[in-house]
Amino acid sequence: MEQVVVPHAPPPPGELASRYRAVRTLTERLREPLSAEDCQGQSMEDASPTKWHLAHTSWFFETFVLAPGWPTYRPFHAEFRVLFNSYYQQVGPQHPRPHRGLLTRPSLDEVLAYRAHVDRHVLELLASGNGRREPLTAVIELGLHHEQQHQELILTDAKHLLAANPLRPAYREATRTPRAGGVPLHWRSYAGGLSKIGHSGRGFAFDNEQPRHDAALLPFALSTRPVTNGEFLAFVEDRGYEQPALWLSDGWSTARARDWAAPLYWERRDGTWWQFTLAGSRPLALDEPVCHLSFYEADAYATWSGARLPTEAEWEVAAAGARVSGNLLDSGLLHPAPAAHGNGMQQLFGDVWEWTRSAYAPYPGYRPPTGALGEYNGKFMCNQIVLRGGSCATPASHIRATYRNFFPPDARWQFSGMRLARNA
Amino acid sequence: MEQVVVPHAPPPPGELASRYRAVRTLTERLREPLSAEDCQGQSMEDASPTKWHLAHTSWFFETFVLAPGWPTYRPFHAEFRVLFNSYYQQVGPQHPRPHRGLLTRPSLDEVLAYRAHVDRHVLELLASGNGRREPLTAVIELGLHHEQQHQELILTDAKHLLAANPLRPAYREATRTPRAGGVPLHWRSYAGGLSKIGHSGRGFAFDNEQPRHDAALLPFALSTRPVTNGEFLAFVEDRGYEQPALWLSDGWSTARARDWAAPLYWERRDGTWWQFTLAGSRPLALDEPVCHLSFYEADAYATWSGARLPTEAEWEVAAAGARVSGNLLDSGLLHPAPAAHGNGMQQLFGDVWEWTRSAYAPYPGYRPPTGALGEYNGKFMCNQIVLRGGSCATPASHIRATYRNFFPPDARWQFSGMRLARNA
Amino acid sequence: MEQVVVPHAPPPPGELASRYRAVRTLTERLREPLSAEDCQGQSMEDASPTKWHLAHTSWFFETFVLAPGWPTYRPFHAEFRVLFNSYYQQVGPQHPRPHRGLLTRPSLDEVLAYRAHVDRHVLELLASGNGRREPLTAVIELGLHHEQQHQELILTDAKHLLAANPLRPAYREATRTPRAGGVPLHWRSYAGGLSKIGHSGRGFAFDNEQPRHDAALLPFALSTRPVTNGEFLAFVEDRGYEQPALWLSDGWSTARARDWAAPLYWERRDGTWWQFTLAGSRPLALDEPVCHLSFYEADAYATWSGARLPTEAEWEVAAAGARVSGNLLDSGLLHPAPAAHGNGMQQLFGDVWEWTRSAYAPYPGYRPPTGALGEYNGKFMCNQIVLRGGSCATPASHIRATYRNFFPPDARWQFSGMRLARNA
Amino acid sequence: MEQVVVPHAPPPPGELASRYRAVRTLTERLREPLSAEDCQGQSMEDASPTKWHLAHTSWFFETFVLAPGWPTYRPFHAEFRVLFNSYYQQVGPQHPRPHRGLLTRPSLDEVLAYRAHVDRHVLELLASGNGRREPLTAVIELGLHHEQQHQELILTDAKHLLAANPLRPAYREATRTPRAGGVPLHWRSYAGGLSKIGHSGRGFAFDNEQPRHDAALLPFALSTRPVTNGEFLAFVEDRGYEQPALWLSDGWSTARARDWAAPLYWERRDGTWWQFTLAGSRPLALDEPVCHLSFYEADAYATWSGARLPTEAEWEVAAAGARVSGNLLDSGLLHPAPAAHGNGMQQLFGDVWEWTRSAYAPYPGYRPPTGALGEYNGKFMCNQIVLRGGSCATPASHIRATYRNFFPPDARWQFSGMRLARNA
Repeated sequence: MEQVVVPHAPPPPGELASRYRAVRTLTERLREPLSAEDCQGQSMEDASPTKWHLAHTSWFFETFVLAPGWPTYRPFHAEFRVLFNSYYQQVGPQHPRPHRGLLTRPSLDEVLAYRAHVDRHVLELLASGNGRREPLTAVIELGLHHEQQHQELILTDAKHLLAANPLRPAYREATRTPRAGGVPLHWRSYAGGLSKIGHSGRGFAFDNEQPRHDAALLPFALSTRPVTNGEFLAFVEDRGYEQPALWLSDGWSTARARDWAAPLYWERRDGTWWQFTLAGSRPLALDEPVCHLSFYEADAYATWSGARLPTEAEWEVAAAGARVSGNLLDSGLLHPAPAAHGNGMQQLFGDVWEWTRSAYAPYPGYRPPTGALGEYNGKFMCNQIVLRGGSCATPASHIRATYRNFFPPDARWQFSGMRLARNA
Repeated sequence: MEQVVVPHAPPPPGELASRYRAVRTLTERLREPLSAEDCQGQSMEDASPTKWHLAHTSWFFETFVLAPGWPTYRPFHAEFRVLFNSYYQQVGPQHPRPHRGLLTRPSLDEVLAYRAHVDRHVLELLASGNGRREPLTAVIELGLHHEQQHQELILTDAKHLLAANPLRPAYREATRTPRAGGVPLHWRSYAGGLSKIGHSGRGFAFDNEQPRHDAALLPFALSTRPVTNGEFLAFVEDRGYEQPALWLSDGWSTARARDWAAPLYWERRDGTWWQFTLAGSRPLALDEPVCHLSFYEADAYATWSGARLPTEAEWEVAAAGARVSGNLLDSGLLHPAPAAHGNGMQQLFGDVWEWTRSAYAPYPGYRPPTGALGEYNGKFMCNQIVLRGGSCATPASHIRATYRNFFPPDARWQFSGMRLARNA
Repeated sequence: MEQVVVPHAPPPPGELASRYRAVRTLTERLREPLSAEDCQGQSMEDASPTKWHLAHTSWFFETFVLAPGWPTYRPFHAEFRVLFNSYYQQVGPQHPRPHRGLLTRPSLDEVLAYRAHVDRHVLELLASGNGRREPLTAVIELGLHHEQQHQELILTDAKHLLAANPLRPAYREATRTPRAGGVPLHWRSYAGGLSKIGHSGRGFAFDNEQPRHDAALLPFALSTRPVTNGEFLAFVEDRGYEQPALWLSDGWSTARARDWAAPLYWERRDGTWWQFTLAGSRPLALDEPVCHLSFYEADAYATWSGARLPTEAEWEVAAAGARVSGNLLDSGLLHPAPAAHGNGMQQLFGDVWEWTRSAYAPYPGYRPPTGALGEYNGKFMCNQIVLRGGSCATPASHIRATYRNFFPPDARWQFSGMRLARNA
Repeated sequence: MEQVVVPHAPPPPGELASRYRAVRTLTERLREPLSAEDCQGQSMEDASPTKWHLAHTSWFFETFVLAPGWPTYRPFHAEFRVLFNSYYQQVGPQHPRPHRGLLTRPSLDEVLAYRAHVDRHVLELLASGNGRREPLTAVIELGLHHEQQHQELILTDAKHLLAANPLRPAYREATRTPRAGGVPLHWRSYAGGLSKIGHSGRGFAFDNEQPRHDAALLPFALSTRPVTNGEFLAFVEDRGYEQPALWLSDGWSTARARDWAAPLYWERRDGTWWQFTLAGSRPLALDEPVCHLSFYEADAYATWSGARLPTEAEWEVAAAGARVSGNLLDSGLLHPAPAAHGNGMQQLFGDVWEWTRSAYAPYPGYRPPTGALGEYNGKFMCNQIVLRGGSCATPASHIRATYRNFFPPDARWQFSGMRLARNA
């Protein structure tokens, strides 16, 4: 069996089994507001049908846990090895990504049966002697974090699909009104100097958060909360989308080619700005963090405001001591909320992923694991930008200060916003 | 209300109502083998989801019959006017064709309710005094022929979707084995000369079949049956797809750009040829008519065989006296069948649409109707090729000798085959 | 040697030699206003550099006359067989069309030397016994008509290239002012009935003009002169480019995709319309024939005006008895001129190629010649529209009433205009 | 006038004038082997015609030196402001980059006259009181470094153009045989730790090399010379281009989409590898540095060999003390040469640009200059990879240890190769 990815001590099997049940169940609960038809649609190549997410996360356990860990295990369906392989070249060929939405078979019901089949076997394995041992437990833990990433994608991909429908249907009704906002932007300064970043080795982390290493920083300051819709609207109204001098070269040509004139999901109707949310369309709330920005728009806004985006090291230094709490998936809001009043850094975790000014690159001394799981993170370390902090669609148990999310600079369909930085 | 399209005497309202019920019911019966998810998928821009076909055919009656004919009629849903408008610019904007597959809402159930709503009102209209009068009855009849066209598209679009799935799922199991074949190719000669073609005015016809007019023909001969899989296989094995001298220039570049090496739905596995059918994948039957050819392939085959394709006038002259019967949708086979032994022309109707050598053009004296229904046929008279005779997916009550079907020369997903012609 | 294309008696060798000299010299004279750099540019895939035209027309004689007719002939340069092959698959591979503009070598001087080399050998062949015999003389004559086609392309391709330059440089200064215009549009009626069209066999004709055959026509009328800029401007000002109901479906989507709002080479500056000509940019002359239309625009204009385009058979019937004269290349104007006052049909030949409503198709009984020269015309008989009558860039000795030019319906860079037709 | 970019003391005006003459003359000397036609061709969007380079570098002085520095200066041609603006949005609109090859006017001779016109005025300005003062002298110096960048591009763009010609013409004959090679690969170790990188402020540097700042490095080792053709050939022969596990994800899809199977300009004919050089095609020399790699290929090779690419900080630490000498443009070889025998690091400067593992990003504390010249470097800091050390086409007076070149990861037409790194 191939080498395990994550060299930390995984939780004891009993705890792992209960965590397994909780994560797998949540995925299916997130599916519930969606019909079989909703689970079928694929609105663009970057997004996947919900049904595919449900199947692929099961494929992950089947391929990396059951197949190597259970000598007599028989796959649920031979063709699924290809159909639900995302990008693991070492596992074999993949059904073409843009055609995931054409897989009307297997049906949603069959995919749910596939999930149950995999669950039964994984839990049996965990209950047996075999599954209690590394490396299997480590891979199971990895599979759960993998599934949590797809939980977020289920929400962002469904949002993108529903937004493409002129009926503007809601994923589900709004549960409650977020608290009032209106908190002014403050800055907090940091001394810089030689700082450690990266994961220390306690608890789970992805390979890309390691090794922990020194980063040399100049003194800097960060805004104490993310930029709001109201602030970003001032950029729009100042014709920020029409001034090339504010934009990176690739950003400007992308914005022109795609006719960007506001963040994704903003719509202007009869002089009023609306935004599409998972609870349907509603007037733009000015005190909420601005969301669904590309890196290009975030960078242009920062330039326009006389500031810049933080590097990922600066962000991590600021977040290093902070408690992981905030408007995460667990809050159930499924939408960014206004900042609370109070001192100190706000909203480091949750609400919106924060674009940094850092290209996604290997940390010094990084080596991807061997085997197919080495493809998990390492091969994407080019043409992507790091985002930090999690969003309103990220499970709380999934995020941490060292966590490195990454997307291409033109991606807008994640809950992606921004915090400002400046040289101190 | 806008002018009626078809200047013949439509059937009496009672007969029209019973015909209406029959056609609308058949559409829904054709849907039954497909799940809600199957009805959602759109495999390419040229194809539409089954659900969209179900809704669009109802939109046609709502827009062209109920709205003008029933002063107080309220549309089932205001947005449907845009969502299910195919290409009628004079009706208003259209949901973009490539995004039809993203409309996971309305659900299939809602669309079926939409159908029921429209049916109730159309039948009520027909029962009332208003609906018994032209032009409404003529438009209702047009709407039924329109719906029959979409019945065929439901089958060809579903076939294309299912074929894109590596599981190669069947639309439904094969009902019965077609009769044995192996009939050799014979030729039948026609004297040519000045011949009338086009619709005479008795019974329904589309505007594009009119006016009836003279065509001057040289003596010619037609093959008594369509080209078979076995004959076409000889072309493949003679490297017909690799010899540019056999192809039209645009055909050659299309074939090269798309890597065509056999008809659509042919697959070679371990040295054996298979074909995908609505009953799933099965070995290529050599005595069946070759199917799912583009015009380019049909023309190249004809050149290779030393013959040519017939003009549409030649085809119509040959079919003028023939009875409309054959392997049409009503046979339930849903697949081309081998020719029967016997004298005379075989398979003029049904089995496969036959590519002609004629570009789709207005007949001399043709004028499209005024109003939006004038867009039905006339505006497509460019870059398309005429096909004749109907296929195994065409309702028998829909086809006739003067019927002009048309598709671009690169289209392959219809049940399109070919008959040979030569100068006599 | 491969079979000769044109089955008529070619001129005696002495006359052929003097015609050869005249045609070849004219090609080089047309080149003279252009620098070596001008001869290098290729402004789009459809157009070719002047230098390439100079070489390709020589390649034609080398490949189809010298190689088969002169046993010891050694090609000027072995690689030219590929570099200057346009589309003859049976001759062998071709340098990719879009990359013709990258061939900075051979230089213009080398290409002129290539021409001289070919000329010397062809004339020697004609002076010898060998070259006096068919089929060589027939192919030489074909080569001269081929070269005349490229004379026109040299002008239209250079115009397109110069128009792409913001400096709007002239090919050469205007030689003289065309006569005054302002002739109103009249109609002339024709009886229709069974009419012969196609080439009778006296004098040179391309294979695609044959066989002569019957066409059955309804009574019709044609406008006595082409549509003018002034008349077309009324269509523009009536928002003809914004009304989908006037357009063929493919025409409308093409016009929208390419942002067409006026004919090619029209520019509106400060409220005035200008047109780019081979003598540079100048104010739009309202009484000149409108030019640089696509078939789509011509068809939309005809619809808007309540008329239609003529079929090619109608056009040929009208032109059958007319003398071949008019504003052709020989007039030196290189631009369409206003119609003259007077009775009868005007401007059938010259000024602008006239779009017909006829798809380019084989005449009844047509068979392309065998061998590579069979690719000359036949393989393009799909997706193209016939134009008739020649333009201000067509040599007078090249055009005739039966001549069938053809271009795709979206082509605009030829001197292409329109005459109206209606049912009588 | 806008702020000057480079905050160091420029050379005294007399020295600047003589440097100006030398750089401008060299540009024209590099042009000499090319005909006017060669100077016209543009082989891809990334490359520009030589004539355009000649004009654009003059435009730079006209726009940023003469226009602001000489109140009564009249531009050589009003349209040139648009035609030869590369990407300075704050100067105004730009002729579209892909259409630079269509500008057959102005002619090469006119562009050379434009150069002379600009030279006369710049030298007059330098001789006058005005031009002796900053900021003008600083901008003139910037303009000379800018022109040196285009000297390299003239060579790489011409190479790309000539390589697109099946005649494989040479830019000029090879001047001499490079010295023998065959030096084995050695490693040299570096201690890492906190290291200063970036420009110190003495002598000219671009804004992107500043500010000088700390970088924290782990111990590392670098290969003492770049990877050779022979070594890279082993990767090719080991099917390196067919193993996805060796490649970054974007690299693999790019290599597949473009059918990469060897470095650019390698050709296999009859079992032998050839490479296209500025002296024409010749057998692959195994001891020369491998060249014309994309970042993706360099990264895949490094992975295959068990090593990695150096970061730009590692490279700069290794190069910090080295003398700037090597096979640069001044050697006249115009092609990478084999490594010399001897101890220590070889070929840090010249031969091939060395891809690093570093995305091109702003240094800590970086701020682009204000005004249009701020667009020179800063706006490209996204989606690009840093290369270091210069190549056989880089002027010696242009390169230094802190110099940051940058290209997108798929670019191959520069003289780009690689040096290996590993963790020590």
